[in-house]
Amino acid sequence: MSNTIPESYRDLFQKKAFAHLATIMPDGSPQVTPVWCDYDGTYIRINSAKGRVKDHNMRRNPQVALEIMDPDNPYRYLAVRGRVAEITESGADAHIDMLAKKYLGEERYPYGRPGEVRVLYKIQPDRVSSMG
Amino acid sequence: MSNTIPESYRDLFQKKAFAHLATIMPDGSPQVTPVWCDYDGTYIRINSAKGRVKDHNMRRNPQVALEIMDPDNPYRYLAVRGRVAEITESGADAHIDMLAKKYLGEERYPYGRPGEVRVLYKIQPDRVSSMG
Repeated sequence: MSNTIPESYRDLFQKKAFAHLATIMPDGSPQVTPVWCDYDGTYIRINSAKGRVKDHNMRRNPQVALEIMDPDNPYRYLAVRGRVAEITESGADAHIDMLAKKYLGEERYPYGRPGEVRVLYKIQPDRVSSMG
Repeated sequence: MSNTIPESYRDLFQKKAFAHLATIMPDGSPQVTPVWCDYDGTYIRINSAKGRVKDHNMRRNPQVALEIMDPDNPYRYLAVRGRVAEITESGADAHIDMLAKKYLGEERYPYGRPGEVRVLYKIQPDRVSSMG
């Protein structure tokens, strides 16, 4: 167990690997959805839109977990437990465009809806385990 | 939202699709790991070994969530919230062999460790959402 992402697994953030993100519902039960992600050297960063279930959950309870599987080998993955250290709209539009470039090869995020407010969440890894 | 797996997504259980399973730690935070899975028509079934973190978590707190992504299209997935309705060692060895057949093409699960006790968990879906 470590609180940093091992160098030998950082390639996962260069690939189109999804983070399977768990957040906590108001009743204490978990919710899991796939999200795009990147890593800034300190935080795992994900992006969502204001008002979604996972947005509400992370604002209420910063405890999250995520698992990132190597798309080239499902038996190689990172499992991370951590907490949302920062939630911000600042830079969130640029960040979703950057993720769209990585995952879709598009210069701009094509799925924005009218009035949608993008939100950037920075996740501090507390316990990182790796497999494979 | 439904509490059954839509017919149109049951093909996911025929594929080598992993369930990204979230369980709840003693402190209320989530944990996520990939697991093999199948569906018996009522329950999503997963298999682990006695004494593992997720085994402890599911015995303490039956609230779980899982997400199953189509290996052929990451934008098509099922997200399920539910609860562990049954935990049993009965049939667990046969079940892990069946999963090894599905995921590895092997007649028997090749990774068993001496003294390992396999456990079968039957998850009742409470809320099922599908995407893609």
